Amino acid sequence: MTSRTARYKDDDLAGEPPSTADNAAPDDTTSVEKLFEAKPVPPWTKQLTVRAIFVSAVLAFAFTFIVMKLNLTTGIIPSLNVSAGLLGFFFVKTWSKVLAQTGLLRTPFTRQENTVIQTCVVAASGIAFSGGFGSYLFGMSSIIANQSPEAAAAADIKNPSLGWMIAFLFVVSFLGLFSVLPLRKIMIVDFRLTYPSGTATANLINGFHTPEGAELAKKQVSKLGRFFSMSFLWSFFQWFFTAGDDCGFSSFPTFGLQAYKNKFYFDFSATYVGVGMICPYIINVSLLIGGILSWGVMWPLIANKKGDWYDAKLKSSSLEGLQGYKVFIAIAMILGDGLYNFVKVLARTLSGLYKQCYKKDSDVGPTDDSSHGHPPSISYDDKRRTELFLKDQIPTWFSIAGYVIIAAISTITLPFIFHQLKWYYIIVIYIIAPALAFCNAFGCGLTDWSLASTYGKLAIFCIGAWAGSDGGGVLAGLAACGVMMNIVSTASDLMQDFKTGYMTLASPRSMFVSQVVGTAMGCIISPCVFWLFYKAFGNLGSPDSQYPAPYALVYRNMAILGVDGFSALPRYCLTLCCAFFVGAIVINLIRDMVGNKYARFIPIPMAMAIPFYIGSYFAIDMCLGSLILFIWEKVNKENAEAFGSAVASGLICGDGIWTLPSSIIALAGVKPPICMKFLSRATNAKVDAFLG
Amino acid sequence: MTSRTARYKDDDLAGEPPSTADNAAPDDTTSVEKLFEAKPVPPWTKQLTVRAIFVSAVLAFAFTFIVMKLNLTTGIIPSLNVSAGLLGFFFVKTWSKVLAQTGLLRTPFTRQENTVIQTCVVAASGIAFSGGFGSYLFGMSSIIANQSPEAAAAADIKNPSLGWMIAFLFVVSFLGLFSVLPLRKIMIVDFRLTYPSGTATANLINGFHTPEGAELAKKQVSKLGRFFSMSFLWSFFQWFFTAGDDCGFSSFPTFGLQAYKNKFYFDFSATYVGVGMICPYIINVSLLIGGILSWGVMWPLIANKKGDWYDAKLKSSSLEGLQGYKVFIAIAMILGDGLYNFVKVLARTLSGLYKQCYKKDSDVGPTDDSSHGHPPSISYDDKRRTELFLKDQIPTWFSIAGYVIIAAISTITLPFIFHQLKWYYIIVIYIIAPALAFCNAFGCGLTDWSLASTYGKLAIFCIGAWAGSDGGGVLAGLAACGVMMNIVSTASDLMQDFKTGYMTLASPRSMFVSQVVGTAMGCIISPCVFWLFYKAFGNLGSPDSQYPAPYALVYRNMAILGVDGFSALPRYCLTLCCAFFVGAIVINLIRDMVGNKYARFIPIPMAMAIPFYIGSYFAIDMCLGSLILFIWEKVNKENAEAFGSAVASGLICGDGIWTLPSSIIALAGVKPPICMKFLSRATNAKVDAFLG
Repeated sequence: MTSRTARYKDDDLAGEPPSTADNAAPDDTTSVEKLFEAKPVPPWTKQLTVRAIFVSAVLAFAFTFIVMKLNLTTGIIPSLNVSAGLLGFFFVKTWSKVLAQTGLLRTPFTRQENTVIQTCVVAASGIAFSGGFGSYLFGMSSIIANQSPEAAAAADIKNPSLGWMIAFLFVVSFLGLFSVLPLRKIMIVDFRLTYPSGTATANLINGFHTPEGAELAKKQVSKLGRFFSMSFLWSFFQWFFTAGDDCGFSSFPTFGLQAYKNKFYFDFSATYVGVGMICPYIINVSLLIGGILSWGVMWPLIANKKGDWYDAKLKSSSLEGLQGYKVFIAIAMILGDGLYNFVKVLARTLSGLYKQCYKKDSDVGPTDDSSHGHPPSISYDDKRRTELFLKDQIPTWFSIAGYVIIAAISTITLPFIFHQLKWYYIIVIYIIAPALAFCNAFGCGLTDWSLASTYGKLAIFCIGAWAGSDGGGVLAGLAACGVMMNIVSTASDLMQDFKTGYMTLASPRSMFVSQVVGTAMGCIISPCVFWLFYKAFGNLGSPDSQYPAPYALVYRNMAILGVDGFSALPRYCLTLCCAFFVGAIVINLIRDMVGNKYARFIPIPMAMAIPFYIGSYFAIDMCLGSLILFIWEKVNKENAEAFGSAVASGLICGDGIWTLPSSIIALAGVKPPICMKFLSRATNAKVDAFLG
Repeated sequence: MTSRTARYKDDDLAGEPPSTADNAAPDDTTSVEKLFEAKPVPPWTKQLTVRAIFVSAVLAFAFTFIVMKLNLTTGIIPSLNVSAGLLGFFFVKTWSKVLAQTGLLRTPFTRQENTVIQTCVVAASGIAFSGGFGSYLFGMSSIIANQSPEAAAAADIKNPSLGWMIAFLFVVSFLGLFSVLPLRKIMIVDFRLTYPSGTATANLINGFHTPEGAELAKKQVSKLGRFFSMSFLWSFFQWFFTAGDDCGFSSFPTFGLQAYKNKFYFDFSATYVGVGMICPYIINVSLLIGGILSWGVMWPLIANKKGDWYDAKLKSSSLEGLQGYKVFIAIAMILGDGLYNFVKVLARTLSGLYKQCYKKDSDVGPTDDSSHGHPPSISYDDKRRTELFLKDQIPTWFSIAGYVIIAAISTITLPFIFHQLKWYYIIVIYIIAPALAFCNAFGCGLTDWSLASTYGKLAIFCIGAWAGSDGGGVLAGLAACGVMMNIVSTASDLMQDFKTGYMTLASPRSMFVSQVVGTAMGCIISPCVFWLFYKAFGNLGSPDSQYPAPYALVYRNMAILGVDGFSALPRYCLTLCCAFFVGAIVINLIRDMVGNKYARFIPIPMAMAIPFYIGSYFAIDMCLGSLILFIWEKVNKENAEAFGSAVASGLICGDGIWTLPSSIIALAGVKPPICMKFLSRATNAKVDAFLG
């Protein structure tokens, strides 16, 4: 087994042997699928059971409620993948047990069915986020518009109403699904992207369903369980100290207050330490390099130009100021990397198709293993998983046809809902969207970050500027944001699920159907739940309300800014964006040219860009994860390989499941009792004088 | 190897086989002394080298400076045992290496010599604390007297002066030494008390001197080294967050703010986690039970009687209020336990002597192994250590004669220094003192806490009340406090050193001489260093000075209170004290009567009493240490037995050595930059409003 850095290799595309599997060494003793060999994989139609749909619906409703509440209060939405997998298991397991006792149980509960439930729930509750009820959609309302400094024209306002919201979601939400579909083999099988959350969920589900008698697997499950509990308890413990902003371990200035201001700190997040253990070293190092480059060098330098390059009086969150550099340079770099890879894949796909047509080669898909001299020394797990993942094909024409048909429907329908959104804007979005969806799914596979809202912001800017203030640019921008966000968010969410499906041998067909069902559920459940909140709490969205929906105003303000177009950006921002866009492409070119031997020492631009505006704290978590794994491998390589993945999954899942009780606690109005605050010595003296 | 609870057994006195050694299983593979077998133990006169004395003097001077500074600033003095051992090693090792290269080295550096240095330094720097320069001695001065609310009579003031301070220290400091001497075999060999700090220092010293080629020892040393570094770095890290009172990890309200107010929290101290790993389970559990009984039940109940049992307007630190109950009930319980054991030892010693005289039995010391049926299945380490510990005898008549002669000299001299201190007070103190010294050394052996200042407070009260306000009771009380503190503090400090000596095969004779030399050094160095501070900083002791010496005023106020005698104590305090005194004796009686099988489930009163006024935080640390060891033993018993002691020593020593740089940093005037503060949600909202 070569080093973990080999896990991420875009060269795999060229047929290099994928030297590692996600959690299985070539050695049979650590193979997961060997354990499951005796368990038959049901055909895809059997993976989709009525009970699975029913359980999904119940969970989707619960999760939508939670996400909606968070949308409207803090605006920060955790990933619920893990909770969905776990609760799905317990629901159906209990159900099966009860039925088994009454003798009515017909189909045993399989891990494939578990994955189907998880996928369906994620698809449904994902809409509660990408539907923008706390951001762009609600930002259109008059309540939010009145809070904005500038007076809003009637053309810039659209108040929520159940009818158009459901219609809107139905015409835009399924597009993401179809745009994702043809990418799945490239991302999962060819690129071997890690999708840390998806991998962790799969390990959890595999753990639950491990057949009796498997010695190592038992140990792995017990390890996973132990770290799961530890991570859960740790998150629980942390909660008590978070009464207020900048309180608690997640605001711990580990490297001093100055570093904390520049987002350099270890935030004690078990999730990201686990993610760091699953991600290849080069990703974590790239993140850190990106963080140092941006927050350590670039932003301080640009901040010195305050008053010169941009207005010194701007709020720190204004896109016309420093924040503008952060967001747009990051987007430029991500786009550069993403487009490079998109073009590369496209080229290879076309050349593969060309070869296939001419040579009548029976190769599956666009890889061209045979043209290289390397024998594919793939692990048993990967072999079996790839085999099943590719068994139930969904033809590419189906995806393309689906995409085009739905795009056509929505191009016709959308201008009826938002008359400010012209049909040609929509066509342009739908032409660009698949590339951006690819970028987001790709980046998410590398780093576990979905940057859907970032792409949404891009849409606000581009379409808003195009429409201009006379053409209702604000509303056009917000609506375009919705269209874009739905596509790219679905792309990354569902690709995570495909990874889970890959690792649990769930059929892509059953996954796809489950995603369609889940999306449909979400399109109805989410607006209804929002409507409930909207009607139940009259002052929804006002700043002194219980539900201020903070991001709705942020999005509206961005849209107002966007109408002014690129001229609103601070000075040299566009120049820097171009430089970083080109830079990302150049780095990728170099990575591809120098060969694998050196490529693994060259950072990945996509990963470097993420800390540009988020900060380095999660990169530090992830590097700690890498460090732990590195030391573990030095001390006991065998042990690290057998249990590393289990430990990482435990860490991710424990923290992940805590989001559920914490959300419920928040819904119940229970607030944490203590604030762990960090003050400089001088401030502390002041505070002590004030309190004493 | 039986359970660790067997480590503390006062039944060992009755000749039960001491079933465990301190850090060595009977199994030879874990024997430390086997490794050292090839290394000859030099005769006691060779353990005392000139270079050892020289290095000790240098270190003693440095440490006295540090302790004095801490005396006069915060008043909180850390234990410097570990630092002394470590620095002693590095000094002499460097010296030896340099000399070895020049070919001038004659005697190799042995661990016995290392222990001698450590003992000498501890004896010398201990005087800086027990000399009371930050407490009773400075409390006599007019600077402090003027800060007290009541006007001071001339008879109640004695300003510092180099002459009388040195004289005073010389006549009282050696008494502790002689009172300890005859107890050493009882404490170390018969009672097998743990003395966690002493044990840890010994492990450190043994680790440094381990001969090459010892496989397990190497691993142990590397384990010790790793945990040493971790503990050191952890303390270092903690330091950054302690800008201000109640800041940092040591004020972490782990179980909530309410529990924190009642001193129930985990304070993240590596030292006490390590101490907990060395102490037997029953001690740690006793501490916790004591903490719950006092802070969880008794103090809240008594606090309810505020305004009824005691004046509601009193400061929380006043001994006339709740604090009085805490201090005096704890003292009563400790005295009850200590006296019971003292009488028991005395009775057995006398009966042993009686038997020896009549049967001409050649038994060494007062134990009567032969009268029981158990064959002594002692480990190799213990056998060898006991043998060497008992080889160089110091006759009991020598100790008694020494004690009596010095007591006589000081009874004559002291009234010349403090004319308020009548000769008959002194005689009474000297009659009671050995019993209290025994109590303190015994308690310290069990729990690592020296309660010297508590016994000093007792003396303030008793002698102050006896002298009365007309007879200069304040000064008499403070002087009596000094006499008492010197004896009991020396008793516990030096018994820790004897434990280290026992475990490093240092001869008691060389240890004793080293202690005498160290004490003599301390009697001169400490007053001189104090004098330096006193003359250099004119306003020493005033509250707005850089050196406020906070405890000096506290001690003086106690003395003022003490003059009023027991009538000053809050209501029912004396009754409760009597109840707990009797309770402690009864529990001990029960422990002795039910036999070993059940005795190990009955808590030890001495340990229970300590959290009574200190609080439970350190008990929680220690219980965590127990828990870690317990789980470790469950998971891998062999491993836990081989490395438990090394890990614990590493934790204790790392934290211990940090006191040195932290003191130096403080001396240099560098203050920590950040305060990690814990506020309730309501307070936090106020603070945020204040700051924002």
